[in-house]
Amino acid sequence: MQGQSQQQAYDRGVSIWSPDGRLYQVEYAREAVKRGTASIGVRTPDGVVLAVDKRFRSPLEERSSVEKIHKADDHIGIASAGHVADARQLIDFARQQAQVNQLRYGEPVGVETLTKDITDHIQQYTQVGGARPFGVALIIGGVEDGEPRLYETDPSGTASEWQALAVGSGRAEMLDHLEENYREEMDLDAGVGLALETLATATDDEPDAAEIGVATVDVETERLAQLDDDEIDSYIDELELDVDESAEE
Amino acid sequence: MQGQSQQQAYDRGVSIWSPDGRLYQVEYAREAVKRGTASIGVRTPDGVVLAVDKRFRSPLEERSSVEKIHKADDHIGIASAGHVADARQLIDFARQQAQVNQLRYGEPVGVETLTKDITDHIQQYTQVGGARPFGVALIIGGVEDGEPRLYETDPSGTASEWQALAVGSGRAEMLDHLEENYREEMDLDAGVGLALETLATATDDEPDAAEIGVATVDVETERLAQLDDDEIDSYIDELELDVDESAEE
Amino acid sequence: MQGQSQQQAYDRGVSIWSPDGRLYQVEYAREAVKRGTASIGVRTPDGVVLAVDKRFRSPLEERSSVEKIHKADDHIGIASAGHVADARQLIDFARQQAQVNQLRYGEPVGVETLTKDITDHIQQYTQVGGARPFGVALIIGGVEDGEPRLYETDPSGTASEWQALAVGSGRAEMLDHLEENYREEMDLDAGVGLALETLATATDDEPDAAEIGVATVDVETERLAQLDDDEIDSYIDELELDVDESAEE
Amino acid sequence: MQGQSQQQAYDRGVSIWSPDGRLYQVEYAREAVKRGTASIGVRTPDGVVLAVDKRFRSPLEERSSVEKIHKADDHIGIASAGHVADARQLIDFARQQAQVNQLRYGEPVGVETLTKDITDHIQQYTQVGGARPFGVALIIGGVEDGEPRLYETDPSGTASEWQALAVGSGRAEMLDHLEENYREEMDLDAGVGLALETLATATDDEPDAAEIGVATVDVETERLAQLDDDEIDSYIDELELDVDESAEE
Amino acid sequence: MQGQSQQQAYDRGVSIWSPDGRLYQVEYAREAVKRGTASIGVRTPDGVVLAVDKRFRSPLEERSSVEKIHKADDHIGIASAGHVADARQLIDFARQQAQVNQLRYGEPVGVETLTKDITDHIQQYTQVGGARPFGVALIIGGVEDGEPRLYETDPSGTASEWQALAVGSGRAEMLDHLEENYREEMDLDAGVGLALETLATATDDEPDAAEIGVATVDVETERLAQLDDDEIDSYIDELELDVDESAEE
Amino acid sequence: MQGQSQQQAYDRGVSIWSPDGRLYQVEYAREAVKRGTASIGVRTPDGVVLAVDKRFRSPLEERSSVEKIHKADDHIGIASAGHVADARQLIDFARQQAQVNQLRYGEPVGVETLTKDITDHIQQYTQVGGARPFGVALIIGGVEDGEPRLYETDPSGTASEWQALAVGSGRAEMLDHLEENYREEMDLDAGVGLALETLATATDDEPDAAEIGVATVDVETERLAQLDDDEIDSYIDELELDVDESAEE
Amino acid sequence: MQGQSQQQAYDRGVSIWSPDGRLYQVEYAREAVKRGTASIGVRTPDGVVLAVDKRFRSPLEERSSVEKIHKADDHIGIASAGHVADARQLIDFARQQAQVNQLRYGEPVGVETLTKDITDHIQQYTQVGGARPFGVALIIGGVEDGEPRLYETDPSGTASEWQALAVGSGRAEMLDHLEENYREEMDLDAGVGLALETLATATDDEPDAAEIGVATVDVETERLAQLDDDEIDSYIDELELDVDESAEE
Repeated sequence: MQGQSQQQAYDRGVSIWSPDGRLYQVEYAREAVKRGTASIGVRTPDGVVLAVDKRFRSPLEERSSVEKIHKADDHIGIASAGHVADARQLIDFARQQAQVNQLRYGEPVGVETLTKDITDHIQQYTQVGGARPFGVALIIGGVEDGEPRLYETDPSGTASEWQALAVGSGRAEMLDHLEENYREEMDLDAGVGLALETLATATDDEPDAAEIGVATVDVETERLAQLDDDEIDSYIDELELDVDESAEE
Repeated sequence: MQGQSQQQAYDRGVSIWSPDGRLYQVEYAREAVKRGTASIGVRTPDGVVLAVDKRFRSPLEERSSVEKIHKADDHIGIASAGHVADARQLIDFARQQAQVNQLRYGEPVGVETLTKDITDHIQQYTQVGGARPFGVALIIGGVEDGEPRLYETDPSGTASEWQALAVGSGRAEMLDHLEENYREEMDLDAGVGLALETLATATDDEPDAAEIGVATVDVETERLAQLDDDEIDSYIDELELDVDESAEE
Repeated sequence: MQGQSQQQAYDRGVSIWSPDGRLYQVEYAREAVKRGTASIGVRTPDGVVLAVDKRFRSPLEERSSVEKIHKADDHIGIASAGHVADARQLIDFARQQAQVNQLRYGEPVGVETLTKDITDHIQQYTQVGGARPFGVALIIGGVEDGEPRLYETDPSGTASEWQALAVGSGRAEMLDHLEENYREEMDLDAGVGLALETLATATDDEPDAAEIGVATVDVETERLAQLDDDEIDSYIDELELDVDESAEE
Repeated sequence: MQGQSQQQAYDRGVSIWSPDGRLYQVEYAREAVKRGTASIGVRTPDGVVLAVDKRFRSPLEERSSVEKIHKADDHIGIASAGHVADARQLIDFARQQAQVNQLRYGEPVGVETLTKDITDHIQQYTQVGGARPFGVALIIGGVEDGEPRLYETDPSGTASEWQALAVGSGRAEMLDHLEENYREEMDLDAGVGLALETLATATDDEPDAAEIGVATVDVETERLAQLDDDEIDSYIDELELDVDESAEE
Repeated sequence: MQGQSQQQAYDRGVSIWSPDGRLYQVEYAREAVKRGTASIGVRTPDGVVLAVDKRFRSPLEERSSVEKIHKADDHIGIASAGHVADARQLIDFARQQAQVNQLRYGEPVGVETLTKDITDHIQQYTQVGGARPFGVALIIGGVEDGEPRLYETDPSGTASEWQALAVGSGRAEMLDHLEENYREEMDLDAGVGLALETLATATDDEPDAAEIGVATVDVETERLAQLDDDEIDSYIDELELDVDESAEE
Repeated sequence: MQGQSQQQAYDRGVSIWSPDGRLYQVEYAREAVKRGTASIGVRTPDGVVLAVDKRFRSPLEERSSVEKIHKADDHIGIASAGHVADARQLIDFARQQAQVNQLRYGEPVGVETLTKDITDHIQQYTQVGGARPFGVALIIGGVEDGEPRLYETDPSGTASEWQALAVGSGRAEMLDHLEENYREEMDLDAGVGLALETLATATDDEPDAAEIGVATVDVETERLAQLDDDEIDSYIDELELDVDESAEE
Repeated sequence: MQGQSQQQAYDRGVSIWSPDGRLYQVEYAREAVKRGTASIGVRTPDGVVLAVDKRFRSPLEERSSVEKIHKADDHIGIASAGHVADARQLIDFARQQAQVNQLRYGEPVGVETLTKDITDHIQQYTQVGGARPFGVALIIGGVEDGEPRLYETDPSGTASEWQALAVGSGRAEMLDHLEENYREEMDLDAGVGLALETLATATDDEPDAAEIGVATVDVETERLAQLDDDEIDSYIDELELDVDESAEE
C-alpha cells in the first residue's frame, strides 16, 4: 500500500530520484521495451546477424514494407524493441550522426562511436525535465575495421557490447537459449540459424518467413544485407529440424 | 478502484511512462480517433481509393465544401479520422513538406517519405512536454514511381503500410469486411466499390452520395481525383446489389 | 461522483486528452460561446447577411459604437458569439491576415482562405500548453469570386461552411427556425428578414433596432454594408407581420 | 460545498475555462475593481468629464500629488478603479502607445484606437499563462476629431463606449444615479455637477474638494484640464443644493 | 477553517487573484515589511529627514557600517523596512536608474520620476509568474527643483507622497504620533527631532545614537547628509525633554 | 498540526511569501548553515583572522588539501559554513568578480564591494523561481585601503560587518564566547588565539592542528597567509592554558 | 508516519531545502551510488591505482569492451560507482575540459583543476530546477607535476582528496579495510594488491580477473595504463595468500 503510493509520488516527476536511488521513469520505459516484439543479435567471426519478429495486426498490413531492421549506414544495421515511434526517432538520429561523421572525418562512423552518440542522446532524456525517456532498446550491429561489433542500448542511455543478445518480449528465455547454444567460432550461416531458432523460443509459433526479418553485415562486404523471404525460408527449413532435435532434449 | 486512480496519476503528466510501459495520453488520443467518422483506403494495382463518411449536424451545412479528402500534393491524397482541427494541422504540415521536397529536390515527394515526415512530427508531440499528442489517424494514399502506395499514421507517430484499411468509428467491423472481401488483383472500380461497401458496414445507413466522399489516384494519371455525387451514386447503385448479396451470405 | 472528480482531473491540465478522447478545455470554451449573445448568418444567391443581438447593460451604454459585426476586409464581415475580448483578438488577427494577403498576392483574401488562417490560429491554442482555447465562435461571411460564402469557426479550430447558421445563446432553437424557413433561392431582403426573425426566436423580446446589428455583403458591390436603425426598423415592421403569421402556423 | 471546491479547482490555473465557460481569474480581477475607490465619467456635447474619489489613509498623505486622473495624451485623460499599481502599468502603456502613434502617423492617437490598444494588451494577460489579469477598470475620456468620446475597459479586455458611467466601489448605485439624471444635451458644467453628485452617492460623505479629483477635456481646447480645489469647491457648493433637492424626492 | 484552506489555495500560485479580488502574495510581502525595523520620513520646507532604527543581533556587529539610509543619488536618500536583501536590490536598481537618467538627459533624476521607475519594477514582480513580490517598503526622500519631496513605495508597486510617514514595525503608533505632532512649517531641526521622537515610540527603548541612523537632504545644498553619532546624540538630548513633556500630556 | 501542514504548503513553492511574511526556503537554507562545521572571523587593528573546523570522515582523507579557507583575491579570504558545494560556487563567483574588478578598474576589489556583489548574487536565488537559495554562510575577511574588514553573508543575501563572528554549528555558544572575550585593541596573535579558543567551544574536543585551518590577512602585507600545522600547534599550546583558565572562571 | 509524508513533500520538488536544511534529491542520488558496483582508488608515492568491479548480466556480454576505468586524459583515469549513463556523461564532460585546457594553456590539465570543473558541473544540477542531480560518484586519479593525486566527487558536487578510498556497494566495509591496511609508503605493486584485496571484501566472491578492471598512473610515465587479465591474475594469485592470512587474523 504505502509502497505503491510512494512509487506513484516519484514517477510523476519525470526525472527525479526515488529514496532508494532509482529513476522510475527509466524503469517504466524498460517495461515498454518488454512489451515490444523480440529482436535478436548474434556476432560471429564472419559478421553480425540481426533478426526480428514482425508481428502484424491484419493480413492486409503490408509485410515487405514494415522495415524493422534499419540501415544506419552501409555497414551498420539497427534492430529495436519497444515503442516503435521512439525507435524511429533514434534511428533517424543515428543516420544523421553517421552522415555527420562521414562529412567531418571523411570515413564511415565506427560502430562503437555511433553507439555512444546514441546513448548520450538517450541519457539527456533521462536527466533534463520537460521530456520522457525513450521507450526502446536498440541492437546495433556492424563491422568496424574488419571486426564485427554488436551493441545494445537501453532506456537509461547505457551501452553494452555482446556476443549475442535478445531484447523485447521473452528476453529472459531467449538469452537462456543463446547462452546455451552460442559458439564463439560459429559461421555466419550458423549465426542466422541460431538467431531464428532463438526467435522461435519467444514466439512459440511455427516460424513464418513473412513475419520474420533477418539482415547480416559480413566482414567481407561490410554491407548490411536484408534476406528475402525465400532465403529466410531455407533457413527455417533447416531450423525446424533443429527445433525438433532441441525439443527432444 | 486502485487501477483507476493509478491511471489518473499518469495521464495528467502529458508525456510520461506508466509503470506498465504505456503512454496514456497517446492511448487517449487513439480514443479521439475512434470517436471520429470513418475513413477507408483501398490499394489496387491500378491506383488507390480513399473514401470517407461526411456526417452533418444540420441540412444547412454545406456538403460540397466540407473537404474530408485533402490533397497533400497532386499525386497524394489524405483522409482522416479523429479530431478535425488536428487533422487539418497535419495536412497543412504535409503540404508544406511536399512543397519543400519539390523545391529542394526538383521532384514530387514520395508517399513513404511524406508519411515519415508526418510521423516524425507526430512523435515529437508524444515525447516533449508542453503539448498534447495529435488526436487523429491519417490514411495517406498516392502513387510513387508508378506504384500505388497506402499508409496509415497513428497518434503515437507510427506508420504502417496497408493493402486496405479503415480508421475511425467502426474500424474493427470495417477491417473484418475488408479482410474478407479484398482481392489483390481487383481493379480500381472494384476498389471504389469495396470502399463504399465497407463504409456502409460502419454507418448502418443507406449510403447517401451527399454524405460520402471518394477520391482516387490512378497509376496512369498520378493525379488525385475527387468523385462527384453522380459518380458516387452510380457506384452506390451497383453496391446495393452487392450489399443484398452479401446480406444473403 | 466518480465521473465528476475524473472530469476535474482533466480540465485542469490545459491541453491534454481525457480517457474517452475529449479535450475538456475546448468543450468548456464552447460553453462560453453558448453564454454569448446570439449571432446569425444567412447566405442567399445575392449575398450574405450577418445579424447580431446587441444587448446592453445600461441605457447609457453607447449603442452605435458597440461594433458587433466587424469588417475583416472590404468584402468580408465577421459576427461572433462568446467571450468578447477573445473575439476581438481573432478579428484583429483576421484583419492582419487580410492585409498580409493583399500585400503578398496583390488581391483580396478569399473567404475560405481567411477562415482557414483563423482556424489554424485557434487550433494552436488547443494543443500547445501555456494558454487557453479561444472562447468564441465566429460567423465569417463574404463574397469570393462573385460567390457568397458563409463559414463558422468553433473553439476547437474547426471550420464549416453553411447556407444559414446561428451561434451563441439559443443556437438550437435558432437552427430549427432556420432549417424550417431557409430557402436556397431567397433574395437578400428575404435573407435579412429570416435573420431578424430567427434572432427574435432567441431573444423572446420585441425586436428593437437599437439592440440589433445587421450587415450584408452583396455579390454586386462586394462591400460589407452595415444597416442603420431606420433600415433595420423597416425590416422589423415586415418581420412582425411574418412573426404573427408564423405564430398562426 | 461541491460547488466551492470545484470553483477552487479552476481559479488556481491562471487562464483556463471552467465547465460553465467562465474565466474565474478574470471574474476575481473584477472583484479587485469593485474594491477600488469610485471613478466617474460623463460625456456632454461640450466635452468629457472625469471625476474620482481620492481617499487617503492619513492626513499626512500628500493630496495634490496623488494623481488619480492621468494624462495619456494632451487630449485624453484616464481615470481608474481597482489595483492601483496595475492601473499605473496600463496608463504607462497608454502613454507609450500615444507617443508611438504620434511618431508613426504624425497625428494624435484617436480615443477609440488607444482604447483598443489597451484592451488588446489586457486580453493577452487573460489568455496566455504565466501572468495574472490586470485588476483594474479604466475610464478613458477625450476628444477625437472634435467629438467627445468616453470608453471603459474591464479586466477581460473588453471595451465599451458610454454616455456616462461609473466604476469601482458603489458602481450599481452610481449607475442608477447617472441613468436617472443624465441628459444628452447637458453642458460641461452640468456634466461636472452630475459627476460630483454621483460620486457623493457612492461615498455617503460630505463631498470634500481635497478628496476629489476632477478633470475635463472640452471640444474647444481639446486639452485635458485638471480642476483645482477652489474650482471643485464651487461645484460642490452648487451640488449641495442639488443633493438636498434630490433628497426631497 | 474553510477560510483558511481557501486562503492556502491562493497564496501558493504566485501571482493570481483570490475570489475577493486580493493578491495574497502581495499582502504577505506586506507582512515582511511589518516585521522589519522602523523607518521614518519627515518633510519640512527646509528639506527632508530620513531616520531609521538600526537594531543589532550582537554588540560585535559593526554599527557604523550597517548602512540603512542609502544614497540613490547625491540629492536623494532611501530608507527601508522589510526584507533587507530585497531592499538592497531595489536600491541598486534606483542607483542605476539615477545614473541612466543623468546620462540620458544630462541632469539629475527627479524624485518622483525615480519613485515611479522603482514602483514599475516592483509591480512586475506582482504580475508576472516565476518570481515573488519584493518584501520591502521604501521611503524615498530628496529635493527636486528646490522642493523637498517624500515618497513611499509598497510591495504592490504603489507610490504615494507624504508630509511625514513611517514604515515597518510599529507603523500604526508612529503614524499616530506623526499626525499629532507634524507641523507643516517646522524647520529641518524640528523635523529631525520629530523623526527621532517618533522612532522612540516604536522601540520603547531609550534612544541610543549607535542604533539610530539619520540623514537629511536640505533645499540649500541638495545633498544627502548622514548625521554622525554626536549630532544624533545632541538631538536625542533635546528629544528627551520633549518625550518627558509629551508624557505629561 | 495545522501549523505544520501550513508550513509545508509554503516551502514547496520555492520563492513565495508565507502569510506571516517569511521565506521558508531561505530559513531552511539557514538550517543547512547550522548543520555545517564552524567557521570564525576576528578583526583586529593589525588584520583579520579566519579559522575553520576541518572535520574528516576518514583518516585516509587528505587533510592538507581540503581547502576550507579560500583565497578570493590576494588580500581577501573567505571561510564558510553550510552546504560545501554551494560554498564553492560562491567562492568561484567571488574570484571572478575580483578579477573583473581588477581588469575594469586596474585595482584590487574592495572587501565591501566584493561582499555586495556576492550578496546580490545570493539574493537572486531567493526571489526568482527555478532555483533554490544557497545553503551557505560566508565570512569574508580582508584589508581595504589599509583597514581590516570582516563581513558575513547569509542565505537571504544580507551582508553585515562584524568585529568578530562565528557561523555554523554552535554559533550561539561561539558568539557568546566572542562577545565576552573580544577586545577591540587585541593584536593579531591574540586574534588567532581567540579564534581557536572559540572554535574549541563549538567542538568540545581537544583542538587538533590537523583538523583546524587558520589564515590571516594583516594590514602590513595585505596578503592572505594560511598557517601551517606547526604554527597552529604553537597557538594551541598557548590556548590550552587559556582554556584551563577560562574553565576556572 | 508524519516524517515519511513530510519527506515525500520535499523530494518531489527537485532542488529545494527541507526544513532541517537537507537536499533530499542529492541524498537519493547518493543511494544510486550505493547501488552501484564498487570502485577503489589507492595513492602511493609511485603512482595511483584504480580498481573496479565489472559485474555482468550474462556470459555473452563482452568483457573486454565494458570500459569501467575511463581515460580523461593521458595522465588521468576515472573510475565510477552509480548510475552508469550519468557516469559516462561526466566522463565525456571531463574529457572535453581536459582538451579545452590543453588548447587554452598548452599544457595538460591538473588533476585538481579537472576535479573542480567536474564538481562545478555537478553542483549546477543540484541547484537549478528542471533537471536531477547526477547519481554517480567518481574516483579521479592521476599525476600532476610529478605528484600522484586521488580525488572523489559526490552527487552534491563536493570534491575531496584521499590517500585511498572506495565508492559504491560495500563502501563502509571497504573503507574499514583500507584504513587498516593502507601504508603511506607502500609501492605501486602493493597499492594494486591492496585495491584488489579491498574489492574482494565488497564482493565476497573469489576474485576473477575477467570481472575486475585495474589501471595505474605511475609518476614515471605519467600515463594511464590498464592491466590485462594476465597481469590482474598474477596479482590475484598473490592476493589470495594475503586474503587467507587476513582471514586468520
